[in-house]
This record gives sequence, C-alpha cells and structure tokens, in this order.
Amino acid sequence: MKAVIAEIITIGDEILYGQIVDTNSAWMGTELTKIGVRVKQITSISDSAEHIIKALDDARTRADVILMTGGLGPTKDDLTKTVLTSYFHTSLKLHAPSLADVTEIFKARGRELTELNRQQAFLPEACTPVRNVLGTAPGMWFEQGGKVFVSMPGVPFEMKRMMTDTVLPQLQQYFDTPHIIHKVVQTVGLPESILADRLEAWEMGLPEHLKLAYLPHLGGVRLRLTGQGTAAEVLEQELQQEVEKLRHIIPGHIFAYGEVKLEEAVGQLLKERGLTIATAESCTGGFLAHKLTSIGGSSAYYQGSIVAYHNEVKVRELGVKPETLQQHGAVSEATVREMARNVRQKFGTDIGVATSGIAGPDGGTAEKPVGTIWIAYADKDRTVAKLLHFNKDRLLNIEYTAMAVLNLVRQRLNTTVEE
Amino acid sequence: MKAVIAEIITIGDEILYGQIVDTNSAWMGTELTKIGVRVKQITSISDSAEHIIKALDDARTRADVILMTGGLGPTKDDLTKTVLTSYFHTSLKLHAPSLADVTEIFKARGRELTELNRQQAFLPEACTPVRNVLGTAPGMWFEQGGKVFVSMPGVPFEMKRMMTDTVLPQLQQYFDTPHIIHKVVQTVGLPESILADRLEAWEMGLPEHLKLAYLPHLGGVRLRLTGQGTAAEVLEQELQQEVEKLRHIIPGHIFAYGEVKLEEAVGQLLKERGLTIATAESCTGGFLAHKLTSIGGSSAYYQGSIVAYHNEVKVRELGVKPETLQQHGAVSEATVREMARNVRQKFGTDIGVATSGIAGPDGGTAEKPVGTIWIAYADKDRTVAKLLHFNKDRLLNIEYTAMAVLNLVRQRLNTTVEE
Repeated sequence: MKAVIAEIITIGDEILYGQIVDTNSAWMGTELTKIGVRVKQITSISDSAEHIIKALDDARTRADVILMTGGLGPTKDDLTKTVLTSYFHTSLKLHAPSLADVTEIFKARGRELTELNRQQAFLPEACTPVRNVLGTAPGMWFEQGGKVFVSMPGVPFEMKRMMTDTVLPQLQQYFDTPHIIHKVVQTVGLPESILADRLEAWEMGLPEHLKLAYLPHLGGVRLRLTGQGTAAEVLEQELQQEVEKLRHIIPGHIFAYGEVKLEEAVGQLLKERGLTIATAESCTGGFLAHKLTSIGGSSAYYQGSIVAYHNEVKVRELGVKPETLQQHGAVSEATVREMARNVRQKFGTDIGVATSGIAGPDGGTAEKPVGTIWIAYADKDRTVAKLLHFNKDRLLNIEYTAMAVLNLVRQRLNTTVEE
Repeated sequence: MKAVIAEIITIGDEILYGQIVDTNSAWMGTELTKIGVRVKQITSISDSAEHIIKALDDARTRADVILMTGGLGPTKDDLTKTVLTSYFHTSLKLHAPSLADVTEIFKARGRELTELNRQQAFLPEACTPVRNVLGTAPGMWFEQGGKVFVSMPGVPFEMKRMMTDTVLPQLQQYFDTPHIIHKVVQTVGLPESILADRLEAWEMGLPEHLKLAYLPHLGGVRLRLTGQGTAAEVLEQELQQEVEKLRHIIPGHIFAYGEVKLEEAVGQLLKERGLTIATAESCTGGFLAHKLTSIGGSSAYYQGSIVAYHNEVKVRELGVKPETLQQHGAVSEATVREMARNVRQKFGTDIGVATSGIAGPDGGTAEKPVGTIWIAYADKDRTVAKLLHFNKDRLLNIEYTAMAVLNLVRQRLNTTVEE
C-alpha cells in the first residue's frame, strides 16, 4: 500500500519574523501521523499571492493532501481565499450556513456583524466548506485530480477543532490509509553516538518496514521505532518484539516507554515503593528541587530541599563538618556524601540526594575545572557518590547534573529491586 | 538598498511527525530580522537526499542566504553533510581543529572518542567550518554565486551559540545590510494590552523609520524599538530620545535596557547595594532559587533556600508556628510572612523572600482555587506580602510566581533608595 503523503503550508509573516512559534504544524504532524498520513514537508510562507501559488504548485508534485493554515482573516492583507478562488478557477458565492455561524458568533459577543466579517461567509463555489464553530473564518476543502487541499484559519484552537471534527475523519474516509504505529523508548545515561554503536547490529537487522530514529534531548535520547503495514495487530507484535530485543541490549538505560520525562518516571518509582526523598543542593541551586516538583502530585514523595549555596549554610543547615570542607573542599566526595546523608536524616526521608560542583563560568581551578561535579545518593543502607565532568556552560551543567541525580536515584531503586 | 533575503531549511523527520516543535526557526527569524535580513520562507523537510537537494535548489532561486539546521548527527540517518558535499562538488577532508574540539568534548566527559564521532570532524573541503564549542557536529559555511549556505546542528543551544558567535556577524560582514539599530526596554508588571494603551499616543507619534514591537514573555513585556537609516549616529540619538520619553511614561515598570533578565537586574541591584538574600519556597519548589542561581556570580548575594514542600518542613526548618498553619493554612499571608522573616533570620541575610500557593493541577478549594499564591519580602525594617491570582497551569504558575517575587524585591530596593 502506498503511503498517503501530506504537506502543511502556513501562511503569514508572523512565523517568518519569529514573532510566533509555529506550534500548529507540530500538532498537525502528530495527528496526521496517528492516522497513517506521512507529512513530507512543512512550508511557512508570506502573505503573497505569487508565493502561495508557487507553494501549492510545488506541494502537489509531492503530496496527496495539502493542508494550509492562516491568511483567512477579514483584513486585506489576508489573501488565502482570494488566491484559492483563482487557483481553482472558481468564484465566490454566499454560503448561507457560514453566514448563520458568523452572525451567531457576533450575537454571542453582543456585537453587530460588520461588512468585513459578512464577507467571510462568501466562499469559493468549488469547495466544500469546513465548519468553524469557534471563529468567523470557515475552512475550505477542495479536491482536484485525486488530491485534497484544505485551508483553515491559523488560530490554534479553531484549526484544532476543525481538524478533529471534520478534516481528519474526512481524510481517513477519502484515502485508503496504511497502519502506522510508533513505539517510543526513553533512554538515559548514554550519549547518542555510544547508543548508536551499541544498537548498530540490531538496527541493521530491522525489517524494511520498521524504522528507528534517535531523538536526543537534555539528559537522554528518545528512540522512536516506527512500523508501517496493513495488519495493525501483526505490526504491534513485531514492534513489541523489537522493543523486547532492545531491552536486552541496553537493559540499564531504559527508563520509560512512551512520552514520559525522567523526573516523572522517578516520581512514579518513588510513589510505587512508597518512598520519600529530600534534596541538598549546592551547584544545582534549586533546579533539582524544581525538576522534582514540576510534576503534579510530587508532594506525595518530595519533602523539600536545602539549597546550601554558601559553605556556611552547608555547615549550619546541613551539618556538614567544617573539617570535611577544610580538608576536601565543598566540591568533593566527602562533602557531597555528608550532604546527602544529613539531608535524609534532617527531613526524615527514605532517600537523600546531594549535588556540589563548579557550574561556572568562574570558580574553576586546574585541579577542579568548571564542570567538575559530585553527586550523591543516600538511603538507609548505603551512600553512593559519583563524579561528573561536564563542559563550560553554566545552565547546561546545572541541567545535566539534575538529570544525572534523577538517573542515579532510578538506578539505585532498580538495583534494590534486583538485589 | 535591497533587502537581504533568507530562507531557513530544517532537516529531520521529528519536526514533520510533530515529535518536536520547531522553536529554532522562530529564534532564527527574530535574530535575522534584527540584523535587517528578511526571512522569506521556512521549510521543514525529511532526511532524504533528493528532498534536501530540491529544497536547496528552490531556496536559492528566492534567497541570498540559506540557513539549514539538523541532520548532522553521527548516525547514518543524518545525511546533510554527505548531501552538501556532493551538492557543492567537493569532498570530505579531516579538519584538524574540529577533531581537536570533538576530542576535547569527549575528554571532558571522561570518554573515549568513538569512530562515529571522529567522522564528524571530516568536513567538505569547499566549506569554511563553523566552530561548535558545545557539541560534536561542526557547522559548514558555503559561498556560491554570491549566495551563502550555512548548515548547523538542530540542537537549539548549539545552533544558537554558533549563530551568535559566528554566523550572524559573518552575514553582516558579507552582505551590505542597512543600518538597523535596536533598543530593548525591559518592562515588568503591566500586561501587554494595558502597556499598549499607555504607550498608544507616544507610539502614534514615532517617525516613520522607527518601529515599536511588543514582545511579551514570561512575566514581562520586552519593548523593541527599531530604527533603520543611513547615518548610524543620528539614528542612535533619535532612539535614545524616544527611550527617554518612554522612561517618563512608565517609570516604575522598566527594569533594564538591553537583553537583561529580571533575575540578572535584581542580582545587579543586590550586588551594587552589597545586600544578601535567602529564599523560602513552598509552591515554587526550588524554581525561585534556580532563577537566582542561574546567574553566574550569584554567590556574591545569594545564600541559599529552604524548599519547604511539606508543612512539617515549614515548621521544623523554617520555624513557622504550628498555630499559624492551623489558623490560616499554608497558603496565607500570615504563613508567607513568617517564612520570609524566618529564612532571613536563619540565613543571616539582609533580605528574605517566600512563596506559598496552590500551583495545581490539584489541591484547589472554592476559597483558594488553583493559582492562589502568596509571596512575601522581608528586610530589617519591614515585611511586605502580596496575593497573586494565576490560572490553572502548574508550570506557568510556578514561573510567574518566581518572576513576581523578583519584581517585588526590585520594587522594594528601588523604594528604599527613593525614600
């Protein structure tokens, strides 16, 4: 079965000038992918007739479906409707149900319908109007030579409602779409290149219709396995088998399946085991606490933090021994171990974790350059410390360190189970 | 003077499938606009040689500069470098400085350089390499027929650093761009619509060649005044005069000029006055501490934080009276005042600030719905508390609250001076 190919064209200068981020296309990409339509290109262009026509001409050479957003407002710089009317050699005609919708919207807002907005109910005769219950610009569905062209407003909630209610179901009906299934495997602790090395043999052995993508992000790599085929159940099984193989190749590095963040996965683990945690932070300066508390419901396991930015605070609030700081310095295994143990005791939690390091840009020495960071984990049985080396960017060092601590907690909790 | 036209091409399926939102292009659009380069089209395409070549061929018919991101990873699904090598009829050659950079990055991480990563230092002979100090994939700058083609990694912080350090300055040098001067005025405490009302008369009176942009962001609105002309000095003077007028219209709401963050401006104020600060956080869960410590050199004024996520911690670590919690609840003026006063005393700082609120999504009541947040400021003379009302999004509530606290500190410090 041939895949149905889509292209998205966004019309309007605000995206080109960086005044707004195009979140519409990502949403559409996700929804189209779910129904087995493959997005081949996303094009953002200006409100210019020539540019719109060129983009349409180009898109139809590659795609079966062309989805447009934007340029449907009531003002004269919105050209999409005019351009499409001439592109499809048709003319504008009053569409009574659309006029009723627009009138209704104005009535609800307690306003008189303006002439400009009345004009919005005039639609190209050749199109099937797409109802817009949330705004004044109806959408337009054109068919030509087996291809579908849809124009929608750029306002995100209007476009989403029209896609969900009308466009996506109609596309499924119009095209004979294949099944596409994605499996996302979240990994942590291996950089993309090393991960790729380990997975090379397995990846080479994947059947033609299964594809692997590496999606690196802060503190981890998302692996996305995509399968395409006619029988959904067979596909699901095949993907499941490959994920199973993957699990054996990098057993310690998978923290979740699907769209789950590391802080969420760790929170889930803590909740399942009924464990509580407290943090003692020096170089991460509250960011680790923030990561943990960014998850709703984290008060079930998170108790609090001492951000001990100054050595005095480390001694007074965390009970780090002055001689430890004198002998080993704040950025040392000895200090970070005491911090983790003491915060655990102080807050009466099952687990205490700690960070101490040189985030930069200043404060580095020859012996301990910027990016030298110690982290520690303490529970009732043991204290584990780890030395990290990052680079020179302060914010990245902070963020990577928080991720490394979360991963350390995850590893220790999993180890406990295995032991 | 003819405007320089740019196009942006992002390469990689993750944007097409909607797995990531393309924030890179908006950032690039903003930065290019600032140096007088006009973005004409943004195109997102798949990792396919044919598609990359078609996009390049199209873009060069319209644009003077073609900026590409993505497809530079070490794995075999990253094709950009291979395609560009053949597109510009050149061949790959080891680039020693890039190899040194990659080796350095691996050394800093305490890892052996892999063969895949070593390959990343092989670059097309026809290009000028663009240094990437934050990652393993160097960028490539090609010139052909008066047009410039630049390829960069898709990782946002790597791309941004390369643009700022190398690509933007080189583009300014390469093309004869008009004089464009920007003045950025940072405001806080007024929503965009109210700010626009206050500035309307002044904005209407601006000369044709000066333009104002409202750039709202988390916790404030950046005002960007852009002037275009031939005589840089005259332009500079005109802009300075307008900024002066602005200063008189919204005196209390300007916290900085230029690209300065609120946490930076507050840090600067504290440093200038020789004051120290500590934080006591409930609902912000460490994010306020993180904002303060995200600024290099913040240890000069920042002492630390108690993140008191649980009421028990508020009592034990912060000395909040149990009767206060019983009578008024954790989210109350009384509690937050005690938190600010006590953390100040406990850490021996000049200033103590505190947050307590319902960040959501759960925990709201009819009396105190999600988004109800108390903040407080305490110094040796006074304690000030403020009630905030935000909406239902947990992360936004946390971020807005931290900004509101920083603004409260700024206002108190300025008041102190004026009194």
